[in-house]
Amino acid sequence: MLNNEYYMANNHGPYEYFDLGDFTLESGQTLNSAKLAYAIYGELNADRSNAILFAIMFSGTSKNMAHYIGPGKALDPEKYCIILPNQLANGLSTSPHNIDGDQAMENFPAISIGDDVIAQHRLLTEKFNINELQLVTGWSMGAQQTLEWAIRYPNMVKRAAPIAGTAQCTPHNALYVDVFSEALKSDPAFNQGAYTKAHSCVLGLKRLAHVFALMGVSAELYKQQQWQRLGFESKQAFLEQFWEAWFKPMDPNALLVMARKWQTGDSSVHANNDLESALQSITAKTFIIGFEKDMFVPPADLLYEQQYIHNSELKLLPSLMGHFAMLGLFEEDFKAIDGLFSELLAS
Amino acid sequence: MLNNEYYMANNHGPYEYFDLGDFTLESGQTLNSAKLAYAIYGELNADRSNAILFAIMFSGTSKNMAHYIGPGKALDPEKYCIILPNQLANGLSTSPHNIDGDQAMENFPAISIGDDVIAQHRLLTEKFNINELQLVTGWSMGAQQTLEWAIRYPNMVKRAAPIAGTAQCTPHNALYVDVFSEALKSDPAFNQGAYTKAHSCVLGLKRLAHVFALMGVSAELYKQQQWQRLGFESKQAFLEQFWEAWFKPMDPNALLVMARKWQTGDSSVHANNDLESALQSITAKTFIIGFEKDMFVPPADLLYEQQYIHNSELKLLPSLMGHFAMLGLFEEDFKAIDGLFSELLAS
Repeated sequence: MLNNEYYMANNHGPYEYFDLGDFTLESGQTLNSAKLAYAIYGELNADRSNAILFAIMFSGTSKNMAHYIGPGKALDPEKYCIILPNQLANGLSTSPHNIDGDQAMENFPAISIGDDVIAQHRLLTEKFNINELQLVTGWSMGAQQTLEWAIRYPNMVKRAAPIAGTAQCTPHNALYVDVFSEALKSDPAFNQGAYTKAHSCVLGLKRLAHVFALMGVSAELYKQQQWQRLGFESKQAFLEQFWEAWFKPMDPNALLVMARKWQTGDSSVHANNDLESALQSITAKTFIIGFEKDMFVPPADLLYEQQYIHNSELKLLPSLMGHFAMLGLFEEDFKAIDGLFSELLAS
Repeated sequence: MLNNEYYMANNHGPYEYFDLGDFTLESGQTLNSAKLAYAIYGELNADRSNAILFAIMFSGTSKNMAHYIGPGKALDPEKYCIILPNQLANGLSTSPHNIDGDQAMENFPAISIGDDVIAQHRLLTEKFNINELQLVTGWSMGAQQTLEWAIRYPNMVKRAAPIAGTAQCTPHNALYVDVFSEALKSDPAFNQGAYTKAHSCVLGLKRLAHVFALMGVSAELYKQQQWQRLGFESKQAFLEQFWEAWFKPMDPNALLVMARKWQTGDSSVHANNDLESALQSITAKTFIIGFEKDMFVPPADLLYEQQYIHNSELKLLPSLMGHFAMLGLFEEDFKAIDGLFSELLAS
């Protein structure tokens, strides 16, 4: 194991572990002694009918979405029991740096979006005996998981709010993943994933961070110097203290396992690779939420999938934060998303 | 000198050279024994009033825009004398790989958009005795040169058609240049520009090519598999045979000198760094041409500058080719741009 202090409870807690045992992956491989890290807010009611699942994005942890949860917010822990499962390989759940033996580091098996959803389903059913979810939501890779949930377990998902993500990764989005993965792997210390110390690959992580800075927020944000609203003094400070600081402490192998999961995300496998049929099988009341200026997942890609989901609406927000509006760093973005959660939960 | 067979007349001809002598740059440095390569179509009329200047984009040469010139097209060589000056450092004009001595390779001086325009002005006035241009146009970095022309020499430029480029490089666009420059320089053979053979840096050039593939055309083009319209059998073939094939033969130092020129482009220097005043000083009848799905230079950036140019109109084309619509590979893009040239020249 690599000792990477970034993935510790003092940075990302509180969270708990659910033991998946030796976990059979969709690929047929087994992930040894797998553990799913999850955060939980609120309490299940007597008939276990007040649960919400909030799935997590690429490179993030349950902590990064916790600000959407609180008294007076749509995701009110006094009313709902809200569970945030960390992705497999996200650094908290079983991941390349925290597993021993022949699955460590560059030998960690490939994980699918479906693997995460199956693991989450086991957590909900085996640990909590939940068989109904008031809402499944998540941003970006969290949206991929949300749609996989709605397609794989339609009887459990009453409402779905995938945010800025699709059931099938688009060719352009896959190219984006290739570009940032290449940037990361270009680090001379990367050694095909067999680096021997945490934080060996700072150069590659910085290059990756710059690709995110380029596509993650809108051109207008830079033009209007709205990094000032985020508390930065200059574009350079925004690049270093926001984007580089985000990625620099992370584990490259973890990012690459998640990246491949992102890229291969495809819930059409549940309908013989027919995406339209897979989307038509969704029964949840669905808000497809997106961002007008999103360069990762442009509105056209959301509209394409939304048209096949029977009980759905497309909700687009105009934020200059583009894809990263979901961080809620601009108050109006947070309020708009919180408002959409409220509207959907009231329906 | 490096022998890079890509930059030979058999690939990029016909073109001629104008000798600039020891050329004083805006930085104060001198470019030794500088030569400007240019292509010329048609003949000057008796009063030298039928000239058009067509400036060239990043990584391109005069040959790449020559398809806009021909009998029956707006840029008709039977009517106009059309001059296409290659950029300094583009591989044909004086460039890092074709200069000897202490300015070779990584020691090539920084060049500005203004340097190019001054060199072009000398070509037109000293060699051809031209003092009026019916039209100045150019795409991307060619648009930067076009706007610099219109601001620097307003009495010479009757009409201007900058296409998908701005008078002042935007912060987001500058970040784009940083990202692809980093991708190129990440090649282990790059050696800070002191590689000793042409084609040493194929890996870096491929990485750069992928960044262009990501931002250069629209996400919808990939989604709709419109690479088929370009003659490619798959996304992978499009990446390899179009984007990689474009950049792989090129000289990294040439690309990096042009990249820095792109990034530092700023015609506001002619109005005490007041961009609005600089744009307001343009007297040419101007069509600002852009592409709705351009991720390099989004329409908002064009609209911002256009509003300050008195006698101007914004003309946006919807092509899925995004920034690269200007290549005219889709017949409707070519026709639309040719049509705008006609409309402007008739006004």
